Order: sequence, then structure tokens, then C-alpha cells
Amino acid sequence: MKKYSIIVAGGKGLRMGSELPKQFIELKGLPILMHTINKFHEADKTTNIIVTLPKDQKVTWAELVQKHQFSTPHQIVTGGATRYHSVDNALQYIPAHDCVIAIHDGVRPLVSTEVIQESYTQAIQHGAAVPTVPLKESLREITKDGNFAKNRSDFRLVQTPQTFRGDIILHAFENGYQEFFTDDASVAEFNGFAMHLFDGNYENIKVTTPEDLKLGEVLS
Amino acid sequence: MKKYSIIVAGGKGLRMGSELPKQFIELKGLPILMHTINKFHEADKTTNIIVTLPKDQKVTWAELVQKHQFSTPHQIVTGGATRYHSVDNALQYIPAHDCVIAIHDGVRPLVSTEVIQESYTQAIQHGAAVPTVPLKESLREITKDGNFAKNRSDFRLVQTPQTFRGDIILHAFENGYQEFFTDDASVAEFNGFAMHLFDGNYENIKVTTPEDLKLGEVLS
Repeated sequence: MKKYSIIVAGGKGLRMGSELPKQFIELKGLPILMHTINKFHEADKTTNIIVTLPKDQKVTWAELVQKHQFSTPHQIVTGGATRYHSVDNALQYIPAHDCVIAIHDGVRPLVSTEVIQESYTQAIQHGAAVPTVPLKESLREITKDGNFAKNRSDFRLVQTPQTFRGDIILHAFENGYQEFFTDDASVAEFNGFAMHLFDGNYENIKVTTPEDLKLGEVLS
Repeated sequence: MKKYSIIVAGGKGLRMGSELPKQFIELKGLPILMHTINKFHEADKTTNIIVTLPKDQKVTWAELVQKHQFSTPHQIVTGGATRYHSVDNALQYIPAHDCVIAIHDGVRPLVSTEVIQESYTQAIQHGAAVPTVPLKESLREITKDGNFAKNRSDFRLVQTPQTFRGDIILHAFENGYQEFFTDDASVAEFNGFAMHLFDGNYENIKVTTPEDLKLGEVLS
């Protein structure tokens, strides 16, 4: 089955205390986004990698590709106002429904190749699959009546790649945007598709703060 | 108001891939537990520090105190079979109800002094206070009918110190153990006391894996 990887890079970089969008910040000498692209290529040489970037970052990306002589095959498409709209734009470049599509955060360079491979396998089998990790901390829910302890073992933290059979995710995105969409799994779920959960790797953090970048340096 | 700090150290160290209990593992040349004790002493020189340790670790602790010439004032008491029972033992050493008591994980050496000070202030004002941080990842709830996306902004991750006016926590622990107690806040909550939440510091992680220790090295 043909494989696609949509890598969503939309960050403006403000939380990193840097002018440079966070996906372009270097981790061990290479922009974070290049690490991420490489991971998908390493995991499966046949996957077609589509990267979404804000329109005004395309020139910078081209300069970085030249500077680092980055040759891993990938296609750049323009991102949208939200993650939903970025993914929706990328999906326009996927012609057939008979495929499997992994959707991943550009700023998660520490995903393991095993988790990527497993996400394809599980999505082909179950239709929709997301990697999750257990919570290490106690959890409280905030309600209008106060805040209350929850049993953390009833919950999982969701990472990416969130991976789907093409027919499922292309159908789900045909039905339009809802404000409560938080990730690709929530789009599919709203359209009636159940998620299969499998074990992610803890190091697969979203690099969004200077602390995360320090952690990335030691974990990568 | 008289202040106490109960620091709970009960780890056996198995998850760290080490024979040494995790609270004794060195971070920048000093056992994690000594960093934690120092943080409370730095935050408030008047706080009375009570550390719970498994009975069979007391000799090792005494050796470490000598080796590192560790002179920060603290009292060691014997831990119990669970966190609840360790805290319960420590509370026996607090004679009066007119005080404020911070309860902290021994393996959270990266708590900031500001968070410790704030925990006393908030507990004196509100009776019971816990530091929390927002979730960085999407959240799913596992139920018998499947797993479902939750709105992560309705939830908070709970750290320590969990801090209480003496009358509240001493009363709550008089009513006995329940299996669903996950932390000190859940003990107080079960006994009818509402938690006040305030902002914790993200770096205040529980050091329970080799990855955490690496992160601790760069964040401390």
C-alpha cells in the first residue's frame, strides 16, 4: 500500500525566545525539521514526504536546504491558518484513497523509526492509529464546580504520527472544520472513526520551549 | 505559622536500571535527595524538614551524609508500605495542628524555591494548595466503550509540594487509607477539602527514568 507522511511545520518560534521559527532551530547542527524528515525517510524509504510550511518561510527553508546540502526527498506545500487547514492543504496532493497517511508534528524530531513503522502497520490493520504514553503525574480535571482528582491510568497522552488509511482521513477532512479539533485523531473521531492506540516512545517530545531543546540535545 | 516539609523518599531504584534507590543517585555530584532537601531549606530557613526513608536505606543515607558532609538540618523517619503510610508516619512527628505542612516527592529536586514559597502562602490562605502545569500533549480517556479525545485545557498535571494547613491534613489522615489515594491532595479531597491550584514550574519533574536524569543534568 502506498505510503505518505505529512509533516506539519507551522510554528512561529515565539515561545522559543527566538526570531527563528522553532522548526528551523538547530539541534546538533541540523534544523529540527530536517531531523524529523530524515526519521521518516529512515523508517520507510518508500514513503512520500509532504511538508507543510507557512508561505513566508519557504524562502528560508530553501536557503537552509542549500546551506545543509539537505537531499532527503520531500515536497513542500503551503500551510494554512490552523493545523487542520495545513493538513487539509497537504491532503490535496494525495491523489488516491488507497494508501496510508502518517501525519506528524515537524517539531517532534525524536520519534523513533520503530514508532513510525508501527504506526503504518497499525493503521493498515485498524484504519486509524495513534501512539500514546501513560501520564507520569497525577491528573486533575477543572470543572465549573471546582477541580477534582482523576485516575491517571484511565488516560493517555497522545503523540504523533497519527496515521490513517487514506479513505478514512480523506473522508473525514471532506466534512469541514470544527473549532474543537485539537489533532488529526479528533477530526477522524468526529467523523465516526475509532482510534487504535499503540505504545509511543517517551522521548518523542514536541520541542516548543528552550527546556525541550536542551532535552532534545541529550536525548537525540 | 510554624512550617514543616515532609519529603517522601521511598523509591527502590529499579526503573533507573540501578541497584541504588533513585533518590540516592547523584545529580551533578550530589544525591538527588540532598538537592531536594537543600531546595526546601533555601526556600525557607525556618521550615522543619522531615524525610521518610525505607528502614533498610537508613544506613546508606547516614553514609552518604558523611561522605558529602551534608549539614542541612533534617530529621529521618521510617517510611511505610505506600506513600500514604509514609506521610502518615511523618505526620506523627508533628505535634500541633496550628502549622502548615508541605509534602514533596524526594525525587523532584528541580522544584523552584518560588514554587515552595508560593505553596506555603497559598496553603495558609486557602487551606490546601497544589502546583500544576498545563498539558503539552493531546489527551485521550480510556473507557470500557473505547477511547475518546478530551479537551486538554480542562485538565492539569499535578506536581508537588502539596501543601496544607495542619488542621486539614492531620484530620484527613485520621480517617484511614483508601486504595484510590494517588497523592496527598486526593486524601484531603476524599475528606471534603477543596484544592487550590497555582502555577508550578515545568522543570519540577519526578526523576524516575534515565531520560529524566539526563534532563535533570541539563536543567539543574
